[in-house]
Amino acid sequence: MVKREPTDRVLTRSTINPAVLKAEYAVRGKIPLRAEELREQLESGDDQLPFDQVVSCNIGNPQQLDQKPLTYLRQLAALTEYPILIDSPEASSLFPKDVLARAKKLVEEVGSVGAYSHSMGVPTIRKRITTFIEERDGYPSSPDKIYITAGASGGVANLLQVLTASPEDGVLIPIPQYPLYTAALALNSARAVPYYLDESNAWSLDMNDVRHNIQKARDDSTVLKAMVVINPGNPTGNCLSRENMDDILKVCYEEKLVLMADEVYQDNIYHKNRPFISFKKALKDLGAPYSDNVELVSFHSISKGQTGECGRRGGYFELCNFSSEAEEEIYKLASIQLCPSLGGQIGVDVLVCPPKEGEASYPQWIEEREGIARTLKERSEILHKAFNELEGVECNDAEGALYLFPTVHLPPKAIEAAKKAKLAPDAFYCLELLQATGICVVPGSGFGQKEGTFHFRTTFLAPGTDKFAGRLQKFHESFMKEYRE
Amino acid sequence: MVKREPTDRVLTRSTINPAVLKAEYAVRGKIPLRAEELREQLESGDDQLPFDQVVSCNIGNPQQLDQKPLTYLRQLAALTEYPILIDSPEASSLFPKDVLARAKKLVEEVGSVGAYSHSMGVPTIRKRITTFIEERDGYPSSPDKIYITAGASGGVANLLQVLTASPEDGVLIPIPQYPLYTAALALNSARAVPYYLDESNAWSLDMNDVRHNIQKARDDSTVLKAMVVINPGNPTGNCLSRENMDDILKVCYEEKLVLMADEVYQDNIYHKNRPFISFKKALKDLGAPYSDNVELVSFHSISKGQTGECGRRGGYFELCNFSSEAEEEIYKLASIQLCPSLGGQIGVDVLVCPPKEGEASYPQWIEEREGIARTLKERSEILHKAFNELEGVECNDAEGALYLFPTVHLPPKAIEAAKKAKLAPDAFYCLELLQATGICVVPGSGFGQKEGTFHFRTTFLAPGTDKFAGRLQKFHESFMKEYRE
Repeated sequence: MVKREPTDRVLTRSTINPAVLKAEYAVRGKIPLRAEELREQLESGDDQLPFDQVVSCNIGNPQQLDQKPLTYLRQLAALTEYPILIDSPEASSLFPKDVLARAKKLVEEVGSVGAYSHSMGVPTIRKRITTFIEERDGYPSSPDKIYITAGASGGVANLLQVLTASPEDGVLIPIPQYPLYTAALALNSARAVPYYLDESNAWSLDMNDVRHNIQKARDDSTVLKAMVVINPGNPTGNCLSRENMDDILKVCYEEKLVLMADEVYQDNIYHKNRPFISFKKALKDLGAPYSDNVELVSFHSISKGQTGECGRRGGYFELCNFSSEAEEEIYKLASIQLCPSLGGQIGVDVLVCPPKEGEASYPQWIEEREGIARTLKERSEILHKAFNELEGVECNDAEGALYLFPTVHLPPKAIEAAKKAKLAPDAFYCLELLQATGICVVPGSGFGQKEGTFHFRTTFLAPGTDKFAGRLQKFHESFMKEYRE
Repeated sequence: MVKREPTDRVLTRSTINPAVLKAEYAVRGKIPLRAEELREQLESGDDQLPFDQVVSCNIGNPQQLDQKPLTYLRQLAALTEYPILIDSPEASSLFPKDVLARAKKLVEEVGSVGAYSHSMGVPTIRKRITTFIEERDGYPSSPDKIYITAGASGGVANLLQVLTASPEDGVLIPIPQYPLYTAALALNSARAVPYYLDESNAWSLDMNDVRHNIQKARDDSTVLKAMVVINPGNPTGNCLSRENMDDILKVCYEEKLVLMADEVYQDNIYHKNRPFISFKKALKDLGAPYSDNVELVSFHSISKGQTGECGRRGGYFELCNFSSEAEEEIYKLASIQLCPSLGGQIGVDVLVCPPKEGEASYPQWIEEREGIARTLKERSEILHKAFNELEGVECNDAEGALYLFPTVHLPPKAIEAAKKAKLAPDAFYCLELLQATGICVVPGSGFGQKEGTFHFRTTFLAPGTDKFAGRLQKFHESFMKEYRE
C-alpha cells in the first residue's frame, strides 16, 4: 500500500508523460480556445462584444465556413449507408443513374460500411487509388503499398512512430511548418531539425541551408531519419519548383533520409505556371540510382482540395522503396488501429475515382468543383492584396493550399506590451485581433518562423472576404496607431 | 554526406523504433493473415482446399458476418450525409417521421458532417451522452468530461500515452486480456503488469492475487500508474461481481492507480443474474473517500452490442476525478488528432439516445435489437455446449461480450509437433483448425494465459452455428486422434 492523502491524484504534471506535456498544437491552441469562449458568449446573448460573429480562420475546415459538399460524394455516402434506397421505387427521382450503379457496386465490394475492413483499407478502393496515381504520374503503383488512413494525420503519426524512438532521432522539417509534425515528434520524444523556407524567395528551399542544417544536426549527434516536405506548403502556400524537388530527392538519397511528402493540397493550385508535381513522379523521372532506392512516403487526403471532407477523416499514403521489414511494421501499426472509418474510405474512393465525362453526374461535379476552386482563388487574391496594403505587412501570394502567411513588422512598443502580457509578440497581435474583430488566426510562432520575425496564418475560406479584409484593416490601423513609436 | 550503398535502406529492423518491433496484435496477426491467403485462394477458384469458405471468428466484426445494421441508425446516417433528402417529396415514403425530425435537428446542430467538429466531439452529442450516463447510473455527468473517440481503441491509446512514458511505468492488465492493451503499452515502451482472472471460478478476480502482483511489480521498481479492467470480459466473457468491482475500486484508491474500465460490451449481457453495472455507478455508490477521488476513465463504443458498427469508428470515454492538469493534456492529445469522424459521432448519438416508446421507429428498433441479442445468446449456448463435449476441452459460458475462450488440454505429442513447427502449441492447434476447416480463431497466447494452459478465442457471431460446431468437432476429433498418446 502506498501513502495517500484522500485528494491526491495519480495524474498530475509531475507524473504525466513528459513527451505529452512538451507537445504543442497551436492550430487548436490557446487563441482558438479563447475564440470558442467568445463564440459561447455571443451564443448566450452577450451583446457587449465589438463583433457579432467569430470567424474561424485558424483551421482549414472548409465546410464549417462556406464550402459546400460535393453532391456526388454525399449521394454515394447516403446510398452506402442505407443501401435499401438503391432499389427503392423513389431512387430514380432522387439520384442520378451513375451514382446508383456505383453505390450498388460499392456495396457489393465493401459489404456493410459498419464492418471493419482490411486494416490497410478496402482492397478494391486501394486498387482504384493505384489507378489514380498511375494516371497522375505515369508510373506503376501497387495496392499492397497503399494504406488508407483516417485523414493524412493518422498516417503521418504512424510513419513518425516507426521512424523515431529516442531523443537522438531527428527529422528535418520545414520552418514554417504545419505543427502536426512538431507535435508528433514531441510525442515520440524525437527532435525536429529545422530547415528554413526562404520568404524573400516565394518560400522556396535554399538547398545550401538544408545541407548546412543536416551537418549541424549530425554534429549535435542527431540520428537523422527523415525529411518532411509539405507541397503545396502549409502555412506558406508555396509550390516547390521542379529544381527544388530534384534537389530534395538527391539529398535524401545522399544523406540516407526517408522522404515524407505531405501532398494533401495537391488539388489547391492557383498558378498555371506552378502546377502540382508529385514527388513520386519526380523520383521516378530522376532515374537511377534515385528512383528505385529513395524511400518515399506520400500523403493525400479528402480533407482539403475541392472535397473538403475533413470531418469524414479519410486519406491514404503510398510507400515507395521501403524494405519489406519496414512494411511489415507499418502494417502492424495499422492493424492495431483496426481500420480507417468506412465513410472516410468511401470519400477516398470518390477522390481518386470521380465521375467521368458522359456520366449523368459529370456536369454538376465539374460545376461544383470549378466553383469552389474559383472562389478560393478570388478570396486568396483579395486577402493577399489587402495584406500588402497594410503598414508593416508583407505577404507572398498563395500558389497553392488554403492559407496566407503574412509577416507583420511589429513595433517595439507592441513587443513590449506582449512581454507584459506574457505572450509571444505575434500571439499578442492575434489575440488583440480576435478580441477586437472576432477573427481567429494562428500566430506564426505556432508554425515556426525566423528569429525576430512575426507572422500569422489565416485561411482564405471565409465568405465575405471584402468585409473581412476591411475589419482586419481597421484593426491593424488602430493597433499600429496604439503601438507605433 | 553519409556512406551509402545504392540499395541501402534507411528503415530496417535495426533502425525501426524498437517499441514498434515489440508490439504484437494477435487478433490481426499471423493466423488471420493466413486466413486471408486462404480466402484469396478460394476466390481465385482454387477447389483443392478441404472447405469452401473461410469463417472469420478471430475478430468481433458483427456486420462482416451476419449481424444486420440497425435501420434507424442507418436512416439517420444517410439523411445527415445528404440532407437534401430530408425535405424531398419522397422523404415521407422512405423514412419514418421521427427519423426525419431528428435528422433535421442533427443537421442544425452539427452543420456539415464533412466539417471538423470540436476535438472532443459535437457539444450536443456529448450532452446527450451525459443524459445516457445519468439515466444508467443515477449520478450526474458533465459534457466537459466526455470525449467522443474513433472507437474505444483511440481513447485507450490516448489515455495510455498520457499515463506511461518509460520502461519503468507499469499498468495492471488482466490475463487473459484484449491485446490492444499490451500493444499500446509496448508502443509506449511501458510495462504490462499481469493479474490473473480465475478460470476455475468463472474468470473472476482473486483480489489477493491482484495485491500480490502489485507488490511484486513495486519490488521490481515498477512505477504503477493504472489498472485496466475489461467488463464484460474480452476474451473471457465474464461479468464481474459487485464485490469484485468494489474491491477493485478500493485497491485503486489505496494503491494510487487510475482505473481504466473498458465497458464496450455493456450491451452484450446474457445472464439475468449478472446484469451490467458501470464502474461509475459502483464508484459513486461506494461513497467517501472513494467516490470523489478515484480517477476513473470508462470507455464505451458503437462497435459492439446490438449496434455492431465497428467500421464507423465511434466511441466515447468519460473522465471522473481527474485533475484539471491531466484533463488539459488529454484535451491537447485529442486536438492534435483533430476530431473523430462525424459518422462515428452520429453513431454514438444513436447509441446513447435511441428512439423512444411512442415514436414511429420504436417497434422496429426493439424488434431488431431483441433479435440480435437473442441470436447471440443462442449461438453462444450452442457453441458452449459443443466445446464442453470435446475431449480435453473445458469452457466457461459467456455471461457477456461476444467470445468464448475454451481451454484445450493439448497432448504432449501435439506440443512436440508445435515445437517442430516453431509455433506456440495453441497457435499450432489454431493453424491446423484453420487449414482443415477454414475456421479462423485466435490462439490464447495472443491474449495471455496461465503458463502451461492453452486456449483459443472465438466469436459466436458466425451464422449456422450447428454446422460450424460440427466442423470444429470433427476437426478436434481427428486432431486428438493424431496426437493422442
